[in-house]
Amino acid sequence: MSLSWKWFTEYQTHGSAHMHGIKRTIHSDKSRFQEIDVVESEEYGRMLILDGKVQSTVRDEYIYHEALVQPAMVAHPSTRDVLILGGGEGATLREALKHHSVKAVVMVDIDRRVVEISREFVPELSSGAFEDPRVELVIGDGRKYVEGCTRKFDVVIIDLTDPQEGGPGAMLYTKEFYAMLWGILKQDGVIVTQATSTYYSDYCFATILKTVGSVFQKAGGYHVWVPSYDSTWGIVYGSKGPDPHGLVGGFEEEADRKGVKSLRYLDDKTYQALFALPKDLVEKIRQWERIATDANPTFMPV
Amino acid sequence: MSLSWKWFTEYQTHGSAHMHGIKRTIHSDKSRFQEIDVVESEEYGRMLILDGKVQSTVRDEYIYHEALVQPAMVAHPSTRDVLILGGGEGATLREALKHHSVKAVVMVDIDRRVVEISREFVPELSSGAFEDPRVELVIGDGRKYVEGCTRKFDVVIIDLTDPQEGGPGAMLYTKEFYAMLWGILKQDGVIVTQATSTYYSDYCFATILKTVGSVFQKAGGYHVWVPSYDSTWGIVYGSKGPDPHGLVGGFEEEADRKGVKSLRYLDDKTYQALFALPKDLVEKIRQWERIATDANPTFMPV
Amino acid sequence: MSLSWKWFTEYQTHGSAHMHGIKRTIHSDKSRFQEIDVVESEEYGRMLILDGKVQSTVRDEYIYHEALVQPAMVAHPSTRDVLILGGGEGATLREALKHHSVKAVVMVDIDRRVVEISREFVPELSSGAFEDPRVELVIGDGRKYVEGCTRKFDVVIIDLTDPQEGGPGAMLYTKEFYAMLWGILKQDGVIVTQATSTYYSDYCFATILKTVGSVFQKAGGYHVWVPSYDSTWGIVYGSKGPDPHGLVGGFEEEADRKGVKSLRYLDDKTYQALFALPKDLVEKIRQWERIATDANPTFMPV
Amino acid sequence: MSLSWKWFTEYQTHGSAHMHGIKRTIHSDKSRFQEIDVVESEEYGRMLILDGKVQSTVRDEYIYHEALVQPAMVAHPSTRDVLILGGGEGATLREALKHHSVKAVVMVDIDRRVVEISREFVPELSSGAFEDPRVELVIGDGRKYVEGCTRKFDVVIIDLTDPQEGGPGAMLYTKEFYAMLWGILKQDGVIVTQATSTYYSDYCFATILKTVGSVFQKAGGYHVWVPSYDSTWGIVYGSKGPDPHGLVGGFEEEADRKGVKSLRYLDDKTYQALFALPKDLVEKIRQWERIATDANPTFMPV
Repeated sequence: MSLSWKWFTEYQTHGSAHMHGIKRTIHSDKSRFQEIDVVESEEYGRMLILDGKVQSTVRDEYIYHEALVQPAMVAHPSTRDVLILGGGEGATLREALKHHSVKAVVMVDIDRRVVEISREFVPELSSGAFEDPRVELVIGDGRKYVEGCTRKFDVVIIDLTDPQEGGPGAMLYTKEFYAMLWGILKQDGVIVTQATSTYYSDYCFATILKTVGSVFQKAGGYHVWVPSYDSTWGIVYGSKGPDPHGLVGGFEEEADRKGVKSLRYLDDKTYQALFALPKDLVEKIRQWERIATDANPTFMPV
Repeated sequence: MSLSWKWFTEYQTHGSAHMHGIKRTIHSDKSRFQEIDVVESEEYGRMLILDGKVQSTVRDEYIYHEALVQPAMVAHPSTRDVLILGGGEGATLREALKHHSVKAVVMVDIDRRVVEISREFVPELSSGAFEDPRVELVIGDGRKYVEGCTRKFDVVIIDLTDPQEGGPGAMLYTKEFYAMLWGILKQDGVIVTQATSTYYSDYCFATILKTVGSVFQKAGGYHVWVPSYDSTWGIVYGSKGPDPHGLVGGFEEEADRKGVKSLRYLDDKTYQALFALPKDLVEKIRQWERIATDANPTFMPV
Repeated sequence: MSLSWKWFTEYQTHGSAHMHGIKRTIHSDKSRFQEIDVVESEEYGRMLILDGKVQSTVRDEYIYHEALVQPAMVAHPSTRDVLILGGGEGATLREALKHHSVKAVVMVDIDRRVVEISREFVPELSSGAFEDPRVELVIGDGRKYVEGCTRKFDVVIIDLTDPQEGGPGAMLYTKEFYAMLWGILKQDGVIVTQATSTYYSDYCFATILKTVGSVFQKAGGYHVWVPSYDSTWGIVYGSKGPDPHGLVGGFEEEADRKGVKSLRYLDDKTYQALFALPKDLVEKIRQWERIATDANPTFMPV
Repeated sequence: MSLSWKWFTEYQTHGSAHMHGIKRTIHSDKSRFQEIDVVESEEYGRMLILDGKVQSTVRDEYIYHEALVQPAMVAHPSTRDVLILGGGEGATLREALKHHSVKAVVMVDIDRRVVEISREFVPELSSGAFEDPRVELVIGDGRKYVEGCTRKFDVVIIDLTDPQEGGPGAMLYTKEFYAMLWGILKQDGVIVTQATSTYYSDYCFATILKTVGSVFQKAGGYHVWVPSYDSTWGIVYGSKGPDPHGLVGGFEEEADRKGVKSLRYLDDKTYQALFALPKDLVEKIRQWERIATDANPTFMPV
């Protein structure tokens, strides 16, 4: 028999799932916060999985991480101070550090084990980013960090696990939280957050977009197909200054000017395609009025 | 337990698969050519499955069918005669008939049962297209039809199952076959074919593109994410006249001029995004030299 | 690829399941009470599934049905009146009718559709039993039937779906219910009930055994491996007269005397093996004190 | 969602499989001979898996290992020298060493890694057996060992992986091999071998039984349900002296006399049940004539 016999199954909904054949489990652990698995998958190479959700695979992670980080940072006139919430595997950090203008990145992740395991077993993801002297790693709760924060940032990147019923993440997708972020942004500051599947949880994407839009005058959403996420994935931004959408047409030139080399996914064409949301999704967002609050957050289907 | 317990599993490769929860099997049959299943899926509504491969679902089929049919037909100055190979469920036919200029569509499908079952159990797919007086349905082998054909067409649309090892379809993805199609095209004629996953079988997409390009001076490939295909899906065209790529920017206006109403997926933005292939795929295609021939066809991984 | 791609998955627990490859779905329905599927499985032939639980397969159903029906009926001196609760597919009925002494069988099933679908699509299971003039079929709730019953029976056979949290079946596995059955039994009467897996839900089997034992002075449990149930399956009896355990050694002769021909599974040796429960299960039962009541019923794990 | 999301799937046939939920992978390795996995399963605790086949689980291994080892050894008048082929996890060894009469056990396993990994990660299986001074561990090919062997044994126990197409094991289930074993047995010697599923590969069990019977005048087969094997499992013996079947009725007493304490599965009742093969299997064996030879071995379905 030629099929794989070790499978990791990720459910998008109760009636749809992706099965990943596993060659070998590299590391399997349980931290205070979550189950952490690093596996060698048949199709995607090494894969970091948190509580049964694929976070990053060596084969396709660059698609998501470039799309999450670069639009906001390339659009910003000159990013000096960056705050990353989550992103324990270090790939978001790697992308942020590509900008010559960056002087300091604070990265806050709740789970030290995720950082340690990623560095040891999937070093490709951070590519040495944790050794960069500009980086300050804080182990702790992202929301608490923001509440007590007295520093100001140019860009805040939110790279957290999905808002799950019963999970802690949901409180980092609410109006109250985005208002706190507004408070720690410098002039021209931009926040950007992962915003779940635009297909299987389009309502969740729409809610995050409307919620960010209720705090930031300039807000927008875009998407990109991430093979190992089995879906086009949503990203939402809110800005006090530049609008990443405005870059369409000039992305490559601007990225180049800022020293951002070696992008593997984004170029002028694919950048533009990020903003081509399907008509039905656009219409759904237009009519959507739900806003996530601390008292009434939004959740993924499973 | 809330999870589905009836699953249909489609393998992209031996180590990657999509599980679809099934509410109810509507019809399950075996024709001379293939197994035919119509199921009510949890996530995608009714779904037509041939030999274990999802062909069309009522929830997302419009993405694929608009993307397959409309670029070639909207780009063509005035499509009068259309040939469709495959497409038994009638959705490709439905898209072609939207053009006012169309006078005759010949549709050739090898399996009468697919047509009958689709019309009876998933009528949304054809939406009455089979009753249109402009349509001539031929039950038979597509390649044989083309070999013996004396008519000429403006547009030929190839909507067949994937080229599988041991299956009959592989002979409709070869240089020899595309050369025959060249012969039955009118001046300004265009052919367009589904071209497998641009991710899980990128080599297959590249081969089809190079093979069409070895026959047609103007040839191109584009892609679109089809949720139920679990991948961005490739489409390849070859043309004696217009180049669909040239429409970028003016798609909506041109479609409107030709009477094509009620598109659900394509607009100017999503049309443009069709042509934004990822950089690594573009590079792979650039270096690719393999051409599929009758003696040495190309195949999908499973 | 040679593996099946249509699967029905039955979970024994949240971490153990059996996947059955499906050749073809014969009938898929939803009655007022449950989902009903008849499928042609790769390994077990036609299979009746209720709410995701295999009830009977043509390949191995005789093991379960002989083991459920024959010990009580062969042990009873002369069964004249039989009551069957559940058993809609008719195989339990078929076994009961093998006894020449039987004059009347009342069968009560809540779901007319199960009876109809089984007769039409899996007629092997009843083998004409429903046409037997000794049979009276009552469509209704088994417990209500017993509450209002004024007839008396020699043997009552309980062939219901498992006691599930949230399902109606749990009320037919309680002390109160067994006390009602005691009331409608004739002198020397015996009841026998399916009693779930002796492995995956050994606590459930033990509870049913202790509960029957709290009402009947003579009570016992035995088991048999049913391949499509993925487990040794438990059966529990309570008796006013004969003890089936006493038949060990003389089963074949006694069955023969009563006109029971054509048994495919039971003979003297396999009959004796029914009562060979594993030591650890025997010990567990010995120490078990839980009794299921209407106020506090027992449930299967999933 | 409460279901497990890491699954190990073992296929019995191309249309039947058991899914085991995995809590954690303890060790995942690839030796020269096979893939070796130790996992913590949801239902069976730690589990040793070789090339995708469950070998032993801490929850139920005693059923198989007692049933494999004790009938032959308790039946034998006084086992002094034992040869074990395979059995790398050490549980068969553990069972053999329970006999006071045993002076020497040679255990031959081809894969040193299986022994090492089992001792380190699932020490319950051998329970210190490898430290027993009576044990000689030989790493090498079992058949080659037997070919070159000049010692004589009272009991030979064959605890190898199933005969798989393309695998090396099939040559240890042939007439030629059993004839070699005959040659290294002392007077009254007995061989016993695992003999695959009596349900999913009944033909394989029947072939092994007939093959052993073509070499040994006294030969027999029995079976036991092993939950994690998803089937009643077959065991076949051939004897120059005692017949284990003859022990029925006196097993406990005889085991006790030989110092065999702490059996968890076998007692007089369950011992007797080992020999209660179902009628249809008995009939199949009666008519079966196929014998496995080096030129024409027998194989499992997948």
